[in-house]
This record gives sequence, structure tokens and C-alpha cells, in this order.
Amino acid sequence: MAKKVKAFAMLGLNKVGWIEKDAPTCGVNDALVKPLALAPCTSDVHTVWEGAIGDRKDLVLGHEGCGEIVEVGAAVKDFKVGDRVLVGAITPDWGSVEAQSGFPSHSGGMLGGWKFSNSKDGMMSEIFHVNEADANLALIPDGISLAEACMLSDMVMTGFLGAEMADIQLGETVCVIGIGPVGLMAVAGANLRGASHLFAVGSRPDCVRVAKGYGATEIINYKNGSIVEQALKLTNGKGVDKVILAGGDEKTMIEAVQMVKAGGIVSNVNYFGSGDYIPIPRADWGVGMSHKFIHGGLMISGRYRLEKFASLMLTGKLDVKPMITHTLHGFDKVEEALLLMKDKPADLIKPVVII
Amino acid sequence: MAKKVKAFAMLGLNKVGWIEKDAPTCGVNDALVKPLALAPCTSDVHTVWEGAIGDRKDLVLGHEGCGEIVEVGAAVKDFKVGDRVLVGAITPDWGSVEAQSGFPSHSGGMLGGWKFSNSKDGMMSEIFHVNEADANLALIPDGISLAEACMLSDMVMTGFLGAEMADIQLGETVCVIGIGPVGLMAVAGANLRGASHLFAVGSRPDCVRVAKGYGATEIINYKNGSIVEQALKLTNGKGVDKVILAGGDEKTMIEAVQMVKAGGIVSNVNYFGSGDYIPIPRADWGVGMSHKFIHGGLMISGRYRLEKFASLMLTGKLDVKPMITHTLHGFDKVEEALLLMKDKPADLIKPVVII
Amino acid sequence: MAKKVKAFAMLGLNKVGWIEKDAPTCGVNDALVKPLALAPCTSDVHTVWEGAIGDRKDLVLGHEGCGEIVEVGAAVKDFKVGDRVLVGAITPDWGSVEAQSGFPSHSGGMLGGWKFSNSKDGMMSEIFHVNEADANLALIPDGISLAEACMLSDMVMTGFLGAEMADIQLGETVCVIGIGPVGLMAVAGANLRGASHLFAVGSRPDCVRVAKGYGATEIINYKNGSIVEQALKLTNGKGVDKVILAGGDEKTMIEAVQMVKAGGIVSNVNYFGSGDYIPIPRADWGVGMSHKFIHGGLMISGRYRLEKFASLMLTGKLDVKPMITHTLHGFDKVEEALLLMKDKPADLIKPVVII
Amino acid sequence: MAKKVKAFAMLGLNKVGWIEKDAPTCGVNDALVKPLALAPCTSDVHTVWEGAIGDRKDLVLGHEGCGEIVEVGAAVKDFKVGDRVLVGAITPDWGSVEAQSGFPSHSGGMLGGWKFSNSKDGMMSEIFHVNEADANLALIPDGISLAEACMLSDMVMTGFLGAEMADIQLGETVCVIGIGPVGLMAVAGANLRGASHLFAVGSRPDCVRVAKGYGATEIINYKNGSIVEQALKLTNGKGVDKVILAGGDEKTMIEAVQMVKAGGIVSNVNYFGSGDYIPIPRADWGVGMSHKFIHGGLMISGRYRLEKFASLMLTGKLDVKPMITHTLHGFDKVEEALLLMKDKPADLIKPVVII
Repeated sequence: MAKKVKAFAMLGLNKVGWIEKDAPTCGVNDALVKPLALAPCTSDVHTVWEGAIGDRKDLVLGHEGCGEIVEVGAAVKDFKVGDRVLVGAITPDWGSVEAQSGFPSHSGGMLGGWKFSNSKDGMMSEIFHVNEADANLALIPDGISLAEACMLSDMVMTGFLGAEMADIQLGETVCVIGIGPVGLMAVAGANLRGASHLFAVGSRPDCVRVAKGYGATEIINYKNGSIVEQALKLTNGKGVDKVILAGGDEKTMIEAVQMVKAGGIVSNVNYFGSGDYIPIPRADWGVGMSHKFIHGGLMISGRYRLEKFASLMLTGKLDVKPMITHTLHGFDKVEEALLLMKDKPADLIKPVVII
Repeated sequence: MAKKVKAFAMLGLNKVGWIEKDAPTCGVNDALVKPLALAPCTSDVHTVWEGAIGDRKDLVLGHEGCGEIVEVGAAVKDFKVGDRVLVGAITPDWGSVEAQSGFPSHSGGMLGGWKFSNSKDGMMSEIFHVNEADANLALIPDGISLAEACMLSDMVMTGFLGAEMADIQLGETVCVIGIGPVGLMAVAGANLRGASHLFAVGSRPDCVRVAKGYGATEIINYKNGSIVEQALKLTNGKGVDKVILAGGDEKTMIEAVQMVKAGGIVSNVNYFGSGDYIPIPRADWGVGMSHKFIHGGLMISGRYRLEKFASLMLTGKLDVKPMITHTLHGFDKVEEALLLMKDKPADLIKPVVII
Repeated sequence: MAKKVKAFAMLGLNKVGWIEKDAPTCGVNDALVKPLALAPCTSDVHTVWEGAIGDRKDLVLGHEGCGEIVEVGAAVKDFKVGDRVLVGAITPDWGSVEAQSGFPSHSGGMLGGWKFSNSKDGMMSEIFHVNEADANLALIPDGISLAEACMLSDMVMTGFLGAEMADIQLGETVCVIGIGPVGLMAVAGANLRGASHLFAVGSRPDCVRVAKGYGATEIINYKNGSIVEQALKLTNGKGVDKVILAGGDEKTMIEAVQMVKAGGIVSNVNYFGSGDYIPIPRADWGVGMSHKFIHGGLMISGRYRLEKFASLMLTGKLDVKPMITHTLHGFDKVEEALLLMKDKPADLIKPVVII
Repeated sequence: MAKKVKAFAMLGLNKVGWIEKDAPTCGVNDALVKPLALAPCTSDVHTVWEGAIGDRKDLVLGHEGCGEIVEVGAAVKDFKVGDRVLVGAITPDWGSVEAQSGFPSHSGGMLGGWKFSNSKDGMMSEIFHVNEADANLALIPDGISLAEACMLSDMVMTGFLGAEMADIQLGETVCVIGIGPVGLMAVAGANLRGASHLFAVGSRPDCVRVAKGYGATEIINYKNGSIVEQALKLTNGKGVDKVILAGGDEKTMIEAVQMVKAGGIVSNVNYFGSGDYIPIPRADWGVGMSHKFIHGGLMISGRYRLEKFASLMLTGKLDVKPMITHTLHGFDKVEEALLLMKDKPADLIKPVVII
């Protein structure tokens, strides 16, 4: 009889709960991992309460966490049972033609690297499955706590991708729209890549404070009027070099295109949840000829980037602790943590559950 | 009393005619040029009959041509009276911060390099003015005819930019939407950069024939149904690596995003003439995370690129003659040529007036 | 008792011969392949007669070929026994951190993706082993012959990499030094990427003829004097935009740096076989500040690039047949083919053995 | 009779002194500037005492400084007499084909943008000349002192170029060899671009202290043995991702290539002053196939970069004050400052003369 595991799942649209499922099995290249810490993500909220990936029955949630290996496949070379590991939210098939062409997140098709809580069960389970263990895991280095490790799964990866797709150069003026946890990591990423003037668009006091700590030089609050006008005023009408979209809805794209210079980049790491179309404002886009490039992508994970970004934490150049506002203890607290993420109390940035 | 020149101008919306104007004066870094050949552009049609740049009174038309220098400013070093020169449609201020940052076409602000028939009079004049002559002119090499030289002003530059912004790599599958003269040069540019499968979307038989000559391997005709479905069918459902938009309207962007692979690029060189917004289809764009990058820009001109692209003609690697379907003779024929461009008879690709 | 296979091997420095070895075994992600065609490479000559990888005993030679799958591992998804496949000379570990960072050819360490006839037996065996079959094989498309398929293993991949690392742009002037088979493919690659003036440095009449067919516009023959002076003369003293090094020895680097413009690239795909150092000429390199970048790398293979470059052959944009000057028949002819490669008769470019 | 200016000059090899010269004249696009602060550079030392640019008679020295405009040409638009301005050490011709192709520092030929104290008199003069004033000057922003402004002319520009040509990505391990003022700015630049582990190779205590302040995480001192072995030990034998060469001699290139990973970059901003060749170690360079790219270039200046990098100082992200160890007062002190640079007392990093 198959071993069973307890897991926290989406039961259907707008419904979550604890279930029992067959434990995952371990392929030859794979690993099974017992979570040591987990963090819910706004994406889990989108999945359950906004139907982001359609209706699903008994889909285990969660794609941010770290854990301890409990089984490895016969072809796994670099990891063994007992290793404590970082796990990315996206776990590509690294041999795929898409990965070979530079786009591992889309292995097997658009967004195909996104497996946890999408094409297979997520991490909120007593045991979860990781494909291509050698490529998709990394050891948790000494000096990084379990809670901090969880931030590497998605928040750091996604926020930094925003800065990378914006191709930020030394001394550029950058505007990050949205300063939830992804936006904060976009601020940190933009600052680490050498932005000088760094505008953060947001209003929640705790987020504003943390954004400043991550290098934001000016705060733009939509409550004070048009964010475009504020950005233009701060740049003497010239516009910003780059915009990172880490919040808002499809209309925010209009503002992003309006505030960026000709020759600039709008880099999106936001999930667009509604509307058939994301509108580019025609005139502000130079009737098609503005050289305002529009980028957007899914975080790129894997051992290489897990190790690389962890090294920023080890050398003291990135501190994710200010993002972790709520720490809960015990696997059962995963539910409470998710509801925190859904309800977003004023003082919440990111909750973590230590198991 | 100021010298007068005869010129062909936009008299107002939907009205063109011959006027007399004061001859342009030559700044220290500039040149005055007498046209030897001129070509009307669809942009001239947009300007007069679609209000692309608003209502204008007595604005001299034309930004495609070549000519002979009749005066040079005191600071011009590399050109002299009598030189026969290539002239780009876009004539940037090369010392501007925008040019220094890699975007000369936007010197002084978005689209600021576009001066002819926009911020100053165009080329359809007995004498026209070229700013920063050393940087914006190039000698017409032996072996390039006057008519061919006209194709370098805009058609080659714009079509090739489409291929460049698409960052086409050896062996990629590319779809060019629109095979008017810019689209044909996009086909040629994509082919020259090493596209293997090269789809050309169009229906006019003459354009189809020329597109094949420029390397198109398959023709997609919208009359045969959805161009997206045709492109997907030709790629076994995988989509194309890159799309170059060189025609259509704002809804064509939807099709471009639908047919391109995750990790691909939509590169726009089309003028979007109507609608407040250019719509990106949300789901096909991976809800913001598809890594389908959207680029679009204004041709980049200048002496360096004029010489570089002319060298492709000199070495026999680019032949623009198949595009030149109509050759007229005499300055007075500029009007007829423009009306040809407006009315687009079935056998027209590009008319040129030899003066 | 282990199954035995007959194979052609390096017996030791300067010695080759036929041996019997245990047949390779097939890992879960791997495939065993029976060669259908094989081509010897100059690298095999370097290996045996120049000690390029040190002394080796009974190392099976060969890394260019195509074949039919005779066994696949349990985890292989996309290939099955009987499939006829393209095989790259370099077969990376695609999950490695090096591959994740964009350098699959160096998976596991510098040049680590080079396994055939280096860290394991090569292809000149009744059966050979391919690691990570899904990632390192591609189906031979209809329309590509077995002999042509062999050219994809290394010649096309290596020559094209030269053009890629040179970052050739539309209309640039390029010099390819060396027009053996790799150099010829560098000429073809440079031409396919849009070089206008394309100088090929060589002297053998057959190679010169083929180089012209691949787009070379001028031939530089070292018998006519300094190749640097010839290149400078052809460019009116300005130098070339890019150089691809596909032949010569360490001193050829001096000439490459001398003939390239400030801001240009020297892209090396040559094997440097002797000397402790490759000298960069100090003054010609602008005392360190010339922006003459020096690139060099090992071919990048994998299914993605095999398919991509095969598509250039399928669409008629690349024809490798002119390179295949000698076709032999029968597995036993592998030895003769290798000796042809070693002795280089005047009319030889590339021999292929059809099995 | 021409106005005369007092200036400090190279009188010949190994000889400096004060001279009187005709004041420079102002072209239509140019400006004449009275220095407000000046800094000598190691390059001045190379020029006078190492014959870096050959023997010169009465060549005015100096290319680091800021000043006040005393005259502008008729075609200058953005600056006027009395403006206090930043001046780059390199002052390109921005309309040149080289600048159009992305290499302004080589306008008119290799290193052609280097005019001060090379192709024309330098800044150590009562009045100095700046070509293309609109493009090559920038206003000194409020909040930046005259001494700090001098650091923008060359030290910041050159050090940062080292980080840019190394294409440093978030979380990479970088080694900067040499921590004189350029090396220190390379450390700061690497840190600002997101290096995690950042090794600085040097031994002088003051430089070490400042390097740590700029983000160096480990110091490698050649007095403790091979710097290559130290770098390998710190990376568990893997090597560093990128090396910036900002000191040493031609043999240092060997060490740089040895310590960098396959797939890494050696980025040189060092002046190589002796030897005919700069040696690349053949085996460590993977016999030509290591993908260890070797870059090297001359600082890129101009108004765009002056403003951009100044903005890093204005936002507190770059503090150049720790580099300025010696401040002298009075134009006459230029001589003493230069000799300081030549003699390098233990506590010297960079002297500045306030005039």
C-alpha cells in the first residue's frame, strides 16, 4: 500500500484544506524532500481565489520553501539523504531545447518550468518531489537561516529578474512599481545593479521603510496623484531610464510606458490576472517607434542562480530579513500563513512557517 | 532678398501642392543638398492623409533621396560642394545624451532624430538642408545607382532594424508580417542575419515574388485564414522564434504575440496610426511572464550605417532593384510618385523619381 | 560475458589501430548508437600525432558522425531504438551549473563537455555511447544525407561559433583566417550573419573555390606577402571589423589583432597546439585599451543547435556538400579516412565514411 | 598678439616644467575652460617618465579636472560662460563613424578620443580647450565638490569601464587586480553592479582599507604567495567569474587568465607599458577554446556618462572622498601633486589641487 502524506491543498476554487495523498515517488534523477520551512506566495492566493490556473481539485499548494532530502534517485550525483537544500519555485527540465536556447523557465512550452502547484503538487506537503535534483537544488549554506532560505525560492529570483530584464546599468534612474515582497526584491536588485535614483511606488508604511533600506531614493505614492506625473517631475520631465513592474493591473502598463524614456525598458514581473489585453499606449509608445522595449518573464531558477544569489546574502550584500515580518512555527501553521498572505494585514510583508 | 526654392509640400490635412519657400540656410556643421533622386514613402502618405503628425501648413515633404552638395558649413571636414551623397531619413544630433546612450534616433526627445518633413522641411525641394553633415551623409559609392541610393534612406534602414531588434540568430524561424517595401527589407534583413524558415505574410503577387527572392521560404496569405494558425501549423504548433511587424494595424500585435514562442521577440517597425492602445493579449503573453519581448523602434541612420549597408549592395549581397517598380524622371514627377504611393496600384512596390 | 565491439583507436602517441573493447553500457538517460557515417577530424590528428590531450592507450577515436539508436535508457523520452540521429561532437551535462550559466561546453570544468575521444571513447566503434540522449541527439531530418549529417557534428558547429563569438552585424567587413573545413564553415557562418566584405585567408585552390561559394568576396594568400598588409590595403588602412581565427598557430593571433579595428573582435575557434603563450601584440592592442576584444571557445552542441543548423540545410541556405570531397564506404575505411585527414592531399577538404 | 597662458608641461622625456604658451582658440562647437581643480594621473607619469606616447616637447600635461567656462563657440547650445563643468579625460568626436558604431573613445582611429595631453595640450593650463562642448561637458551638480568632480574625469570612468566590460552579473565572484585609484573604482564598480565575493589584490594598507569600504570581501596580497593560488583557494578551486585588471604588468595577464573560470571574462583597464607582447597562457586558455574572453578598453566619457556617474555620487551610492588623500591649494601646486603621483608615498591614493 502506498505511503500517505498530509498536505495542504486547493480543494477547488476558493477552497483550501488539509488532505492526505499518496506520497510522491522518486524518479532516477529526482529527490524527495521534507520541508523545513515554507512560505506562502501571492501566487498561491491567485491560484485559489482568482482562478489563475483554472479550477483544480486537491492540488497541493506552495512553491517557496527549503527542506531536507529524504530520498534521491539512482542517477543523482551531488546530493544525498540528509542534505539541507534550497529549492527554486521553478524547476526546469534542463536538457530541453527551451533550456538550451536560454529559456529554462519555459521548458516544454510556455511557463513549463513552473511545476510546483501547477503541473504537479506543491511543497506544502510532508514530502515533496523535486525533478532533476542535481540541477534544481543547492545546499543551504551555513549562515543562511531556514526563513531566509525560503526567500530565495521565488521572491529574490523574481525581483532580481525584474532588474535583470531591465538591463540596469550603473547610474540609471529606475522606477519600481509595487513594493510588495517581489517589488522590494526588485528595488534591492535594481540597487545592487547600480541604479542611482531609484523610485519606489507604494503606500504601505512598512513597505516604504523597507524599500528605503533596499536603496529606494524617492517614494512615489499614488495617493498623491498621478504616478506618471510624479515620476516626470522627479526627472525634470525626462522620464526614467527603466521601469520594473511588480504590482498593479493591466492599466499599470500604460503608466509604465508613459514614464519611461525613449530607449528605456519596461520590465515586468507582475502577474496580470484580468482583462483580455494589456494595453500599450500608442502615442506614448512613439506610434511603435519609441525604442521603449517591453520585457516580461518568469523567474529563472536552478542551482546556479540559487548559489549565486545566496552568495549575496553570505557576503552581506543582500539582507532578506526585513521582508520576513511574520514567523510561524509548525507545519499546521501553513494554513494561517496563507490566509495572512490573502488578507494582507497592514504590517505584513512576508510570513514564513518554520516546521 | 532671400533666395527662393520650389518645393512640394503638405499644404494642410489632405492637401498637397507646389510652393515656393525661402531656401534653407546652412549652419556651420551642416550642408545644403540638391536632390538627384527622390522617393516618396508611405510615411508621407500618413503625414498628409492620416494626420500622423497633426495638421501642418506648407511643410515640405520627403525623406528618401540622395543628392549633390551645393554648400557646406565652415566646420564640415569630410564633404565638399559637388559630392554626391547618401542621406538618411533620420538625421540625429550625434552629440546629444540620447545618442551617447545608444539611441540617436531619439536625440533631443522621443523620435527627435526625425527632422525631415517633421521638425523641418523635407527633401522634396530644389535644395534641402542636412544637419551635422559629416555624421549624417555618406558618399554614394561607385556601383550604386541614384535609384538604389534612395532605398538606403529609409527602406533598408527600417527593414534591417526590424531584423536587428529581433536579434535573429543563425537558423531561427522568423515571420515577417507585411511585405510592402519595409517588410521586404525586413525579409532581406532576416535572411541576411541567418534565418532558416522565413515566413512572409502578404498577398500581393508582386510582393510575394520579391519576398521569395529575398529569402522567404513560405508565404502566409491572410486570405487563407488565420495567419496565426498558419504559422503554428508550419511550425508543428511550436510557434516562430521571432516576428517582425512591418504592416497591419494595432490588432496585428495580437497575432504577433500569439505566433511567437515563449522566449521569442516581436520586433516592430510598423507605424501604428490609430487607436489609443496597442493590445498585448494577456493569456498568450503568459500573463506577463512569457519572456516574449516586445521591441519597436525608429530606424537608426548616420554615416556609419549608410556606409555599412551600402557595402552589402556593393558586394552583391543585397539587391534593392527588385523593389523599385516605377522609375519617373524630372522633379515635377514627385507629385505623381507620391500619388502612386497613396493609391498603391497592384504592381507598385516603390517608385523613384530621378531628377 | 560482456559484449565486445570492434573500434578504431589511438593505441598510444603516433599509433592507431583496430581494437576490441567491451561494448559501452547505457545509463538511464543515455543512448547507444551504431554509426551510419563517420568523419575524421583534424582534432583526431592532433590527438594522435601531436599529443593534444597527452598520451592515451586504446582510446577510441572519432567525434563526427551520425547513427542509428540501438538502445535507450529508461529515462529517455524523445528517442527510441531505430531512430536515426544527429550527434554533436560535444555532449554536455545540461543540468550542470556551467550549462545553467550559459557555458554547456565547459560542464564540469573547462572543456568538460568534450567527452568523445577525450574523457570517454569516441564514435569510431561499432557502438558508441551518448550521454543525456534527449538533450544531445536530434533526428536526422528527411532531406539531409548521412554525409551531410556528419558535418553538423563539429564543422558547422565550430565554424558558426566563430561567427557568433565575433558578433557579426549586417554589413561588417570580416576576415576569416584559415579555410580548412572549420574555416570554410566560419566563412559560411559570417556570410549567413550578414558580412559584406568577407576576406578568406588561404591558398589551396579547392578551398579558395569553395570559400568563394560560401560568400568570400576577396582571397588573401600569404604567399603574396603579409596578410595584415593585404587586409589593411583592402580596407584603405582601416582594418576589418572582425576576425575569425580558424587556422594558423599562436603567431597568427598577432596578425589577427593587427588587422582588426579598434572596437573589433578577434574570435578564435582554432586549436593552439604549441608554445606556452599566445602573444597579443601590445602596441597594436592599444597598450591594453583598444577595445579589440579577444574571444575563443569550444563549439556548443546539443539538440537545439543541431536542429537549428540543420534547418539551414533544409531551407537551402547552407549547403555542406562542397566540403565533402572524399566519400568512402565501409566501417573499415575509417582508418584510410583518418590518414587522408593527416596527410591532407591537395584536393581534400573533408572525407566521410558511409558505413 | 596672441594671449599667453601659463601651463605645466612635459618639456621632453623625464623633464617637466612651467611654460608659457599661446592661449588655445575656441572653435564654433568648443569651449575654453579655466580649471578650478586638477588632479594628476599615473598616465601623466607614464607620459613623462616612461615615454608612453613618445618624446614630446612642451606638451601641457593633465586630463583630470573641472573648471569654469570662459568662452564658448557660436554653435554651442547648452553651456555658457561662467558655467562650472565636469570634463572627461577623453573627449570624442561624437559624429565620427567610430562613435556611431559604439566606440567613441576611438573616434578617428584607435585611442583617438584621447586628446588631452596627447594630441593636444592638457588641462594643466590657465585655460584649456574642450572640443564639442555640448557633448563633452556636464554641469557640476550641487552637492559635488571640486575635488570630487575631478575623480569623474578618469578614475570613476576607467574603473567603472572595467566592471562594465567584465559584464558583472548579480552574485558573481570578481577579482580586481591592483587597487590604486583605478582599481579602487573598479572595486566600487564591481560592487555597484552586484558582485558578491569581491577579491581585491593589493598590499598597501591604506588602499586595502579603502577597498574594503568599496565592497571588497577578501584581500589577496601577493606577499602571501601566488595570487592565482589564493584566488583558487578562496573559490574551492573553481576560479572566479570575472577578473578586472587594473594594475601589474604584461605577466599579470597570465595570472588573470589562470584564475578565471571557463566562460569568464578578463577585463583590462590597465596600461601595459612594456614588452612587445602580452602573453595569454595557452593551456590555461583551453588551447584557444576556454570561452575565457579577454576585453580591454579606453574609458568612455561624454556628457551622458558624466551625468550618470555623478548621479551615483548625488544619491550617496558612490563616495569618492576616501580616494582623495591629499588636497593641495593653488595652481602652482600642480607640480608638487604630479611628483606625489610619481613618488607614491605610502599614504597616497590620489592628490587633488584646488585652484
